[in-house]
Amino acid sequence: MQNIGFIGLGIMGTPMATNLIKAGFKLTVWNRTPEKCKALTALGATAVASPRQVVAASDITIAMLADPAAAEAVCQGEDGVVAGIRAGKGYIDMSTVAPESAKAIATAVRLAGGRYLEAPVSGSKKPAEEGTLIILAAGDRGLFEQAKPALEAMGKKILFLGEVGQGAQMKLVVNLVMGGMMTMLCEGLALGGKAGLASEQILEVLDSGAVANPMFRMKGPLIAQGRFPTAFPLKHMQKDLRLALNLGGQFGQPLHTAAAANELFKAALGMGLGELDFSAVSRVCER
Amino acid sequence: MQNIGFIGLGIMGTPMATNLIKAGFKLTVWNRTPEKCKALTALGATAVASPRQVVAASDITIAMLADPAAAEAVCQGEDGVVAGIRAGKGYIDMSTVAPESAKAIATAVRLAGGRYLEAPVSGSKKPAEEGTLIILAAGDRGLFEQAKPALEAMGKKILFLGEVGQGAQMKLVVNLVMGGMMTMLCEGLALGGKAGLASEQILEVLDSGAVANPMFRMKGPLIAQGRFPTAFPLKHMQKDLRLALNLGGQFGQPLHTAAAANELFKAALGMGLGELDFSAVSRVCER
Amino acid sequence: MQNIGFIGLGIMGTPMATNLIKAGFKLTVWNRTPEKCKALTALGATAVASPRQVVAASDITIAMLADPAAAEAVCQGEDGVVAGIRAGKGYIDMSTVAPESAKAIATAVRLAGGRYLEAPVSGSKKPAEEGTLIILAAGDRGLFEQAKPALEAMGKKILFLGEVGQGAQMKLVVNLVMGGMMTMLCEGLALGGKAGLASEQILEVLDSGAVANPMFRMKGPLIAQGRFPTAFPLKHMQKDLRLALNLGGQFGQPLHTAAAANELFKAALGMGLGELDFSAVSRVCER
Amino acid sequence: MQNIGFIGLGIMGTPMATNLIKAGFKLTVWNRTPEKCKALTALGATAVASPRQVVAASDITIAMLADPAAAEAVCQGEDGVVAGIRAGKGYIDMSTVAPESAKAIATAVRLAGGRYLEAPVSGSKKPAEEGTLIILAAGDRGLFEQAKPALEAMGKKILFLGEVGQGAQMKLVVNLVMGGMMTMLCEGLALGGKAGLASEQILEVLDSGAVANPMFRMKGPLIAQGRFPTAFPLKHMQKDLRLALNLGGQFGQPLHTAAAANELFKAALGMGLGELDFSAVSRVCER
Repeated sequence: MQNIGFIGLGIMGTPMATNLIKAGFKLTVWNRTPEKCKALTALGATAVASPRQVVAASDITIAMLADPAAAEAVCQGEDGVVAGIRAGKGYIDMSTVAPESAKAIATAVRLAGGRYLEAPVSGSKKPAEEGTLIILAAGDRGLFEQAKPALEAMGKKILFLGEVGQGAQMKLVVNLVMGGMMTMLCEGLALGGKAGLASEQILEVLDSGAVANPMFRMKGPLIAQGRFPTAFPLKHMQKDLRLALNLGGQFGQPLHTAAAANELFKAALGMGLGELDFSAVSRVCER
Repeated sequence: MQNIGFIGLGIMGTPMATNLIKAGFKLTVWNRTPEKCKALTALGATAVASPRQVVAASDITIAMLADPAAAEAVCQGEDGVVAGIRAGKGYIDMSTVAPESAKAIATAVRLAGGRYLEAPVSGSKKPAEEGTLIILAAGDRGLFEQAKPALEAMGKKILFLGEVGQGAQMKLVVNLVMGGMMTMLCEGLALGGKAGLASEQILEVLDSGAVANPMFRMKGPLIAQGRFPTAFPLKHMQKDLRLALNLGGQFGQPLHTAAAANELFKAALGMGLGELDFSAVSRVCER
Repeated sequence: MQNIGFIGLGIMGTPMATNLIKAGFKLTVWNRTPEKCKALTALGATAVASPRQVVAASDITIAMLADPAAAEAVCQGEDGVVAGIRAGKGYIDMSTVAPESAKAIATAVRLAGGRYLEAPVSGSKKPAEEGTLIILAAGDRGLFEQAKPALEAMGKKILFLGEVGQGAQMKLVVNLVMGGMMTMLCEGLALGGKAGLASEQILEVLDSGAVANPMFRMKGPLIAQGRFPTAFPLKHMQKDLRLALNLGGQFGQPLHTAAAANELFKAALGMGLGELDFSAVSRVCER
Repeated sequence: MQNIGFIGLGIMGTPMATNLIKAGFKLTVWNRTPEKCKALTALGATAVASPRQVVAASDITIAMLADPAAAEAVCQGEDGVVAGIRAGKGYIDMSTVAPESAKAIATAVRLAGGRYLEAPVSGSKKPAEEGTLIILAAGDRGLFEQAKPALEAMGKKILFLGEVGQGAQMKLVVNLVMGGMMTMLCEGLALGGKAGLASEQILEVLDSGAVANPMFRMKGPLIAQGRFPTAFPLKHMQKDLRLALNLGGQFGQPLHTAAAANELFKAALGMGLGELDFSAVSRVCER
């Protein structure tokens, strides 16, 4: 069985690492706040003092960090991943980072002789716990094949998408569709509400037909109640839409509907809703 | 068992009437082109010479007509439904008509002493055959209860939505969401294509997550192939979006995303794609 | 000098008719509320009892009515224009009516043997008083030439645009540009305000460069003060945008920017701003 | 009379520097390609070997560079402006740079003891020649007052807008309005064209009314002819719209109309029109 390293034990990382242990992998872990390692060491993982030591102890090191800045620091900082990487070792960044950032990390790892795979995920806390994430991998194909058993312990759907950057781009495409679907739902509920239709009935009809989907089923009733417990923060959705629209700009690809949706999310930021779930964009549609 | 009348034996009406016979109802039918009645008379239905005669022979008369003009002619024309209606009889119009048109028909039926229910459906040919339509009823509550066994023979989901006009409005809300979801899918596929992502993989990721829905699953691969066999004509979707946006105008309800989607469908009309399936809007996004 | 008839002595009609008298025309007038004729009879006009009598006394009859319903009633009602028209007489409708309505009136006048010109105007109260309206004529070319001296007494720019309907369409095109320019100004002021720029300086810069225009100069400072005295009601602008967008739909012409602007005007209606000047759309941009 | 330094003698810089000499200022100049200095030395300017030497010889140094990268290199590079600046000297950057870039340059100049003014201009080649630029200054108020005679030799309208960054932001606001007005004009012309109206007549009507402006007057006939000689490149307009929309994102300010316009400019980039004048967006509206 491979020695796997895991860096970043937050809301996503902890259940993902747990699933690796349950699948029988020998795990070495590190987290900026050391006490977060305890849940894993209790299950048999070994905690070490730096990302570099994780890499030294592992065939493949996986990182799951909260934001691009943390991902870069862990990778390129003193006692970081790059400092420990060498030929024969692999590094898989499952954090969500910008395509350019992913490319910079990939270059640094390769220059040090290592192999690199970006593997951002689609899915939040619950799929992480259940091992049913969607993993959008791109980069070193050999490392992908080698890491497949580990990835399969965390996800139900594992795709290899090509060159580094395409995992991140796939995530932007998916979030663009998701963000636009959310504004469509909210506009439909707002229009129906004005027309005297009950939200429950609108949701029931939508859920009975060709557009029925888990997101509407889960978020729809909460929107109708004006409740927006944060699963995916609105400010992150707006950021992803901005990145997706800028990506469109690079290719000369107009995205008229997504651009309209983006302005609604910007209006929501202006209303102070950025930390709520992205479904809170309904407040903009209803005002 | 009730005597049911059925007017309009087209692509939708024929399977719907067939399901009524299968459920044990005694059926009297009429169609403008009489030979279309044969399939039904072969199953035991009685064909008569006018809508008026259908009404005379039936407790409840159901109409399923191709367009608002036909719906009004059948109802208000000589030897039409209104000419035959009287106290104790019910008329259910399952065609898709504008809210104002539904109200005009309702008034005419009530003035003649009858009861009226609008009941447009969500779903196309296949759900009609399988008896799994979604039926959006509004108007006379008593008639709704009386007709429920018949409606249940045709649909899997039967909703009562309130006053006449609200069935039609619910349909506009649903089609607004559907139309906008389609442009979001097409924009996502177009952006992904420019970024070098394979359509199949984009669709696979979408189908694995929270936004997975039958429409994407069914239409997505056809869009990727550039095939648009008509299930719901693009020109009808554009018309419904226009009506929904105008409805929003009446209520002072902005619908930014839907308005952007509507312009894409208008561009598709300008490219001569109106008779194709509404998924052909992807041609606009890809150019 | 020609005998000119004038029907409709409102805010626009009174100064227009006055300018005709000043230019030396012999005027016969009618207004639904007869006392509004007094200002004109004091200047030498003859007031009569019906539109029909106006037509009987005049070579060319001009109408300037507040809304499409009034325009049709005056034309097609009992003792209306059509009842009096005959070969040799001309009818010029300067009211703003929908293209279809203009065509219906044109047909009725022609069937009665008369000649018809639509001639909606661009410009409001002040240009009407100063005789500096822009007149968008279409229909009977001969009548246009014959009426030119009269039209020149009311407008500074007289265009002949072709078939009946094209005057109305030109007006929609112009109002589409005007409506969109207004939302652009309001978005620019809103963005600048958030960035800490003074409205006066933004307006000063705009007025110093290539986009300087009388509308920004006149409305800009009022917008900055939150004052919206009605020159052109917001609800009429929204109606014109809707008609222009529907016209685009007929031709398959997408109008992405105008559609976005239209949704802002719809939001303004929803905020109860319909009777204010159309510049009140700034309230939507600022909220 | 002050000693003025001038760095950057391109299409804009050469006529601006020429106007300074004509106004009697003693000028020291530098340009990356030295031969471009000849036109100025022929008029009495002194050419030197580096930006640093320009600063050494001048009370106030003005820069007008083609792009942000050049502006930063000239300022922060070896033998650059910062290397030569000291207490008592002023630096005015009239190039168009991003707000963040302007702030970085300002900080470097201040740390070196100098004073800094950003002063981007609105207006292109012809106003530069005629000394009728609009100058959007922000930063050191004392330097602004001291430099006023020089600025007045180059511009007809000189505004002081506050802190460094607000000059650049004002320019984004103005270009946002300009970009949106251009798409409105193009949509109006496209709709009118489909409706059978002549472009010349549409332009004539627009130029006779409240929205008449120099940009429509100058660009309109060229658009009608399908000619787009580059005064302001389309790719720069799209970049400015993107920056303006991102600025809106920072403030939570939705800009629905501008966002729709931006997508049209992106579509134009995709059609390969980026180097043409920004009026070439009409090709997107017409297709």
